[in-house]
Amino acid sequence: MADDLPLALAPTDPRWLAVALADLDAVHRDHLHCERKAAQSALSLVRSYPERAELVAAVARLAHEETAHVVQVSQLLARRGAVPAYDLGDEYAAALRDLIRKQEPARLLDRLLVFALIEGRSAERLGMLGAAIPDEATGALYRALATAEDRHRDTFLELAADIAPGEWRARLDELCAQEAAIMARLPLRPRIH
Amino acid sequence: MADDLPLALAPTDPRWLAVALADLDAVHRDHLHCERKAAQSALSLVRSYPERAELVAAVARLAHEETAHVVQVSQLLARRGAVPAYDLGDEYAAALRDLIRKQEPARLLDRLLVFALIEGRSAERLGMLGAAIPDEATGALYRALATAEDRHRDTFLELAADIAPGEWRARLDELCAQEAAIMARLPLRPRIH
Repeated sequence: MADDLPLALAPTDPRWLAVALADLDAVHRDHLHCERKAAQSALSLVRSYPERAELVAAVARLAHEETAHVVQVSQLLARRGAVPAYDLGDEYAAALRDLIRKQEPARLLDRLLVFALIEGRSAERLGMLGAAIPDEATGALYRALATAEDRHRDTFLELAADIAPGEWRARLDELCAQEAAIMARLPLRPRIH
Repeated sequence: MADDLPLALAPTDPRWLAVALADLDAVHRDHLHCERKAAQSALSLVRSYPERAELVAAVARLAHEETAHVVQVSQLLARRGAVPAYDLGDEYAAALRDLIRKQEPARLLDRLLVFALIEGRSAERLGMLGAAIPDEATGALYRALATAEDRHRDTFLELAADIAPGEWRARLDELCAQEAAIMARLPLRPRIH
């Protein structure tokens, strides 16, 4: 179990918060797609590993929550009169996906750890916004999303620990270092990542 | 609204039921992927049409339900000691997708109507199984899934009626006829379609 291992992410550049707060609707617009893609990524694991019953149930439950978040973010956009936009792509997630090894069983381990990193980074930044957004309802939504993403991070870490008990921590450390390098080279933008 | 228009599907070949009942675990195994793909298809509409707030909320809610069905079917497989299998592909859905016109706004209308047809056909066959499966818990699950798919069919039809009020019924009739032809040429197999 991952209870004793909070993900040791490098903290977000503190200047990011001002960039995000300066264009909150851009953050929300992007976040609609983040939640959608989180659900789709979780479902992609059902496609790849249908024979792993525990994993299937865990990630399908996670996708169930992410689809509820899609509804919530869509309602937030409507409440603010913000017109949603197309997905602009996500260099951060794409760079992390490039780190996933191609051969099984390493591939499954890496997918779980990369998804844990994305959830962990999302939780950190959603939490920063949740604490800083002046509008009470929006701040509360962001805090609730952050709590859920923290839980999802733990789900992925627990699944990783189950399938590769002797290996996952060392690989997580490697990927954490690479995630920090990716974050450091990407521009600060009004989006979660 | 679609309240007065039940989808006029050609009835399933009655011999299909015996084929399905003879290998129920094959049906369940395939159905895990059907529910996953239904959620993914709904989310693909969020990706393509984020600016349509009503559509986004409706299909995200639908995906939310489909992910719950993934969990339920996964639990059913576990209860029966059936090992899930990889997705074998779906010629039926592929043939229907080939009918979707490429240019907008016809593309959106066709996607909604094709999804409605798939939900309608699934509801019909899940209902047939739900009435015929001897095991009470499994039969009840199939009947509940059928009820949900019926509702999803109506969601897609209502969305289609909203975006193309003057056109959707005629196009639905065309696609219904083509769906019947696709069904007639595919072999009877132990799967929902």
